[in-house]
Amino acid sequence: MTERQRANGGHSGPGPSFRRRALLLGGAAAAVGGGTAAALAARHDDPEAGPVAVAPPGAETVPFHGVHQPGIDTLPAQAHAVFLGLDLAAGSGPAEVRRLLRLLTDDAARLMGGRAPLAAEDQELPALPSRLTVTFGFGPGLFDAVGRTEDCPAVVRQLPAFPTDRLDPRWSGGDLLLQVCSDDPVPLSYAVRRLVRDARSIATVRWTQRGFNPARGSEPAGTTPRNLFGQRDGTANPEPGSTELAEAVWVRDGPSWFVGGTMLVLRRIRMDLDTWDDFGRDGKEMAFARRLDTGAPVTGGTEFDEVDPRAVDERGMPIVPASAHVVRAKARTPAERMLRRGYSYDDGPTPDGAPDAGQLFAAYQADAATAFVPVQARLAESDVMNLWINHVGSAAFVIPPGCAEGEFVGQGLLGT
Amino acid sequence: MTERQRANGGHSGPGPSFRRRALLLGGAAAAVGGGTAAALAARHDDPEAGPVAVAPPGAETVPFHGVHQPGIDTLPAQAHAVFLGLDLAAGSGPAEVRRLLRLLTDDAARLMGGRAPLAAEDQELPALPSRLTVTFGFGPGLFDAVGRTEDCPAVVRQLPAFPTDRLDPRWSGGDLLLQVCSDDPVPLSYAVRRLVRDARSIATVRWTQRGFNPARGSEPAGTTPRNLFGQRDGTANPEPGSTELAEAVWVRDGPSWFVGGTMLVLRRIRMDLDTWDDFGRDGKEMAFARRLDTGAPVTGGTEFDEVDPRAVDERGMPIVPASAHVVRAKARTPAERMLRRGYSYDDGPTPDGAPDAGQLFAAYQADAATAFVPVQARLAESDVMNLWINHVGSAAFVIPPGCAEGEFVGQGLLGT
Ligand code: HEM
Ligand code: HEM
Repeated sequence: MTERQRANGGHSGPGPSFRRRALLLGGAAAAVGGGTAAALAARHDDPEAGPVAVAPPGAETVPFHGVHQPGIDTLPAQAHAVFLGLDLAAGSGPAEVRRLLRLLTDDAARLMGGRAPLAAEDQELPALPSRLTVTFGFGPGLFDAVGRTEDCPAVVRQLPAFPTDRLDPRWSGGDLLLQVCSDDPVPLSYAVRRLVRDARSIATVRWTQRGFNPARGSEPAGTTPRNLFGQRDGTANPEPGSTELAEAVWVRDGPSWFVGGTMLVLRRIRMDLDTWDDFGRDGKEMAFARRLDTGAPVTGGTEFDEVDPRAVDERGMPIVPASAHVVRAKARTPAERMLRRGYSYDDGPTPDGAPDAGQLFAAYQADAATAFVPVQARLAESDVMNLWINHVGSAAFVIPPGCAEGEFVGQGLLGT
Repeated sequence: MTERQRANGGHSGPGPSFRRRALLLGGAAAAVGGGTAAALAARHDDPEAGPVAVAPPGAETVPFHGVHQPGIDTLPAQAHAVFLGLDLAAGSGPAEVRRLLRLLTDDAARLMGGRAPLAAEDQELPALPSRLTVTFGFGPGLFDAVGRTEDCPAVVRQLPAFPTDRLDPRWSGGDLLLQVCSDDPVPLSYAVRRLVRDARSIATVRWTQRGFNPARGSEPAGTTPRNLFGQRDGTANPEPGSTELAEAVWVRDGPSWFVGGTMLVLRRIRMDLDTWDDFGRDGKEMAFARRLDTGAPVTGGTEFDEVDPRAVDERGMPIVPASAHVVRAKARTPAERMLRRGYSYDDGPTPDGAPDAGQLFAAYQADAATAFVPVQARLAESDVMNLWINHVGSAAFVIPPGCAEGEFVGQGLLGT
């Protein structure tokens, strides 16, 4: 018997000790997600109980159907994301778009449930979706194609130009957004591939942007992820499950096809990491008004305390620069609030060894005209952070509400 | 007090219940890696004990110094890898190469230990290396630059051409390999960036290849990872820690600068996933002679049993095709053995929606001339798998032995 067979208890299936170990290992993610939390708790109460069948952590799923689309208030954000901007083939009309969305909705529901798309025989790659979510967004070209031009909010049709923009068309625009997230890059790759395969009779791929956050489990669940500046990023976000989040994100007043939906602004923000590297820690912390280590305000307190922009030092001088990022970014009215759910990207190095990395800034809000736009206008006007970043891509999408079983995403807009 | 503060026990630091939860969560990876396994065990014995400080799973490190370089018998392979092929600037000589390797060795030791390179102030991004490893390899151009042309093994200088090769120079060759692996893409990104930054005064980046395996913890530790065909890939590898592995991988006879080293063959193998999708499950299983679900031989038994190429069905017909991948690939002599430690890649879709994905096949062996070459020659001659794959990139490197503290990788070859 080999070492490996011994570890498996020497049986054709995993033996009791192996299963017990799998259970302990599996417990981590399951407990976090709640999926098999009860099973885990039961096991902890009775540590000597016999083996039970427990699904591995990767089996955790997020429900597809519901009032809202998944992948927005699915928090913490999964560790990996692929954002795809698709363009509809010229001449696509309502019938084609409806057919496409019906097909992709069905694919998404199956994939999120751990199954292959209809007619595909794959069992293994979709089986452990690791909280896979698929989120659909509609760009202006989709509204045009279905003859509903006037229903596309002006802000989604065209975000205002900001003075600091350095946008590359290569990372901008798109008729249809697919946002696919998972804690595991393997089911993610499978899901993206199958979705694109089913979309490609009617759509081409305008851009693909891959992002990542710290691996799930690197730090205890609930720890705010770090971005490539090394900062905790997301601290001041509305809390998961809170009324504040719901009010910031979901459309409540508006046409019925849009209620329960939201808007996504996706900006590709390149970081000049070489310059950042060589800036002192104090300066870095002052630029954002938060500490690098804990994310706590430089004015004192702990991570989830607010920065006090009026705090002064012993000589009566202000501690926080007026142009610090969080001072400029902080919502000044409830309508400015948004949920930031970004990812880091790293497509570098370039051949000469320079970084090509930054943040896929993804913000959801009920109305980007009252949230992203004024906030970004303030940042473009003055933000110490502008020393180290450039916005190099931009896209905005209507995220329609979720759908019930038997419906497809966008059905309210497009009809059956 | 907010929900989040409550979760943290309302203190400025995490409170006992939070730490207890963190411990349970953290336990999974720590127990697997052995790092804090003892602490975990102690906690399980005494579930009501007070809070203890336990490093998060991401803090797990792999030792840099040793007889062999890390990142080879570091198993299971980390979830993420970046392979970089660098070219030395024209005119680089032994002094420059020595300086470069001394610097990069120091960087690697620090980064693997959870610290920033010398003089860099970053604390947060390197702090949770998640088993980060940095492995250096020497291509023919490096031997030439240091005036040691004749020391480069012929097989590393030029792998034979195989009839099925479809190699693109874009993914081939290279004077210096950096292989950087981690379970977490964030410290991985940081490490690659800092290493390249320190290399770029003397080297340019010829290619960068990013790969992934299933997220750590998706399945219980020790489960064989799946590739993008959905197969368990690595089953018949020599066992971690075994004599068989040591004999297959490490150079024992040879010049003293090479003993304890190995050779890496890195092939970029594109998978035609559309065609694969549409092939029936039975055919897929027969092509490899192993089942898709468990990885067990189609001739019966469990995953770690061998395929029986002579097995017959009830009519006396052979079950396994003579051209099945594992039948062709299986080592026919001890000298043919290798350690496969590959990664999936997915750089797709292409604009027209086609997949651009496959495997970064990475095999370590004491002598590629007696291992990779004859095995690949057999596969190129006949292997059902050739229906769905193309080798599109190729590079081979000498992997020098590890080094002791105060030394640099390659010191045996280059002198001080
Ligand atoms: C690469 C680009 C960016 C980086 C590195 C960055 C980083 C940060 C950091 C470290 C914080 C403090 C922690 C937190 O509350 O999350 C923060 C806060 C914030 N950022 Fe950004 N940010 C970026 C771009 C943006 C953009 C484009 C916007 C919106 C237009 C934005 C809006 C905000 C908001 C609303 C807050 C919370 C402010 C508060 O209420 O305290 N950020 N950002
Ligand atoms: C995309 C390309 C490849 C795929 C998808 C693939 C897949 C597999 C699978 C599923 C197995 C059975 C499970 C296992 O033992 O790992 C296997 C075995 C093996 N493969 Fe590959 N392989 C690929 C390329 C190669 C190449 C290029 C070589 C060497 C030139 C190779 C050498 C081997 C060896 C030595 C075995 C073990 C055979 C045995 O002793 O049973 N493979 N491969």
